[in-house]
Amino acid sequence: MGKRTICFKNKPRISGTFTVAGPKEGSGDLGKYFDRVIFDDKFGENTFEKAERKMLSSAVTGAINAAKLTVCDVDAFISGDLLNQIISSSFVAREFDFPFIGVYNACSTLTEAFSLAATLTDGGYMRNVVVGTVSHFSTAERQYRYPLELGSTRPPQSQWTVTGSGAAVVTNEGDGPKIVAATFGKVVDFGVIDANNMGAAMAPAAADTLNRLFHETATSPDDYDLILTGDLGALGSRLLKKLSFDNGYDLSKNHSDCGEMIFNIDEEDYQGGSGAGCSAIVFNSYIYEKLRKKQINRMILLATGALLSTVSSQQGESIPCIAHAVVLES
Amino acid sequence: MGKRTICFKNKPRISGTFTVAGPKEGSGDLGKYFDRVIFDDKFGENTFEKAERKMLSSAVTGAINAAKLTVCDVDAFISGDLLNQIISSSFVAREFDFPFIGVYNACSTLTEAFSLAATLTDGGYMRNVVVGTVSHFSTAERQYRYPLELGSTRPPQSQWTVTGSGAAVVTNEGDGPKIVAATFGKVVDFGVIDANNMGAAMAPAAADTLNRLFHETATSPDDYDLILTGDLGALGSRLLKKLSFDNGYDLSKNHSDCGEMIFNIDEEDYQGGSGAGCSAIVFNSYIYEKLRKKQINRMILLATGALLSTVSSQQGESIPCIAHAVVLES
Repeated sequence: MGKRTICFKNKPRISGTFTVAGPKEGSGDLGKYFDRVIFDDKFGENTFEKAERKMLSSAVTGAINAAKLTVCDVDAFISGDLLNQIISSSFVAREFDFPFIGVYNACSTLTEAFSLAATLTDGGYMRNVVVGTVSHFSTAERQYRYPLELGSTRPPQSQWTVTGSGAAVVTNEGDGPKIVAATFGKVVDFGVIDANNMGAAMAPAAADTLNRLFHETATSPDDYDLILTGDLGALGSRLLKKLSFDNGYDLSKNHSDCGEMIFNIDEEDYQGGSGAGCSAIVFNSYIYEKLRKKQINRMILLATGALLSTVSSQQGESIPCIAHAVVLES
Repeated sequence: MGKRTICFKNKPRISGTFTVAGPKEGSGDLGKYFDRVIFDDKFGENTFEKAERKMLSSAVTGAINAAKLTVCDVDAFISGDLLNQIISSSFVAREFDFPFIGVYNACSTLTEAFSLAATLTDGGYMRNVVVGTVSHFSTAERQYRYPLELGSTRPPQSQWTVTGSGAAVVTNEGDGPKIVAATFGKVVDFGVIDANNMGAAMAPAAADTLNRLFHETATSPDDYDLILTGDLGALGSRLLKKLSFDNGYDLSKNHSDCGEMIFNIDEEDYQGGSGAGCSAIVFNSYIYEKLRKKQINRMILLATGALLSTVSSQQGESIPCIAHAVVLES
């Protein structure tokens, strides 16, 4: 196999972002960095699914405005979410008059979408591409696990799906932080079958992609101000550091995880946040600002995804995982 | 909004394909063109879901062989399917050591994947990209509609999900038919709420994309030997012709539909075939051969997708649809 890392010659920019966060997310340490915090997790709608769509729709509109563009300037919308048939993304795309490219790699969808958007703009095929992802605790919980009304006990290895949406405009025209490279992940499965233990399942995929990125770009962790994983959570982050150390890379100095950052420490969150909205709202707010202000000069964003479904779990399958990385410069 | 059509300067090639078809598909008029016909729709596995994966896996391996490549030559696998969280694609990706880019636009996934693969290879970002989609009557029926054991009556506007998988290698190195352009679709929803009437729901999206393609490339139906839609079925095809005629384009001479071609005429199929495997096995076998032999010199492949889920239908939503087109030359 050839290289899995693409280097972008024209260095597409992320010219604007917007984030919408739920009440629990808004009360965490990063709360003040989100563009909008909603205090009703139904967002004025009559179902959680519609609330999820409204968050994504608001993020898309907000990102286009932040990039000082109009909807007429947008060439495509690349989006995915955790609901069956990615209906949040599809129904939001219906509101807009630009093309829709639906993608799905679970919580790794964010960096998958950034990588494709960077390719399309870097190659001059499109000018402005909007990237967006979303998740909602209540839609994910009832789809993947149990009815909310059941009040099921959560095991200590579990993570809490983030209610939130982040969108960004990737462009070959504007200014902003640059996407300089992307490393596409391959599917890695170490045989974890506990659908509550996503962190352990995803860590090997994250380590594999990081390993390839460092190797193919001839860099090491010291070359980055930040290595930010999507939502490995506390346990998954420890496993990633261990696996990377075994690969010869010490992440102890500059690794952070969106899932570990998003909530105040609270017993019922256990390992921290997860979901396609987790890295989307952390990266597109707090981290994006740091890149803009050159407090971060060079970083890796590595969103990780667990590619299971209720059917695969019920049929006794283990959890295939993936992680796509993008390298960003201020 | 800018143009929705991308013209590929380097004209990526489709250098090899492979198709696997189910028993019912194999007994249709196109049966003899499929590379492999299975006579047991469980394909020797103990679940229909595993059979679906095995079909896709066989198609991927077959396409790589047909392109005279090895798995080491493949830079990425772009794939999607109709199952929740596209598990067929994800689990097949696990078998291979190359990156996975999961996509989902329902039955329009085939042309979405071809368009992205053409972009990645045309721009020199990758050399060889495998594109694959799959569907299975029995997995789709029980996920989207009713348990198979219930033996529910099918209404006359319904289509029959194809059991089959097709894969293709898109390359910037080999020979074979060329992908010269792609038109990305936007989401169109005319308010159809009957989840059995996909043809009527999808026809407006197909007409919209075709209209943009003709307009942006300054061509008309007469410039193509074939305009092949994915799986509108009989009713949807009539609607597309009507809508296109209203747009000033007469498709009556050279339009065909994969859904109408795949089965022998049989009362219980009603409108014909559908599913992400339908256009995949028709295009990658019979039609691909005609391109290879220059019996078709220039054509449009327009796969159409209905972006509903059981949740959106149960919540009373109408069906958002999409259609992505690629222009192919021999």
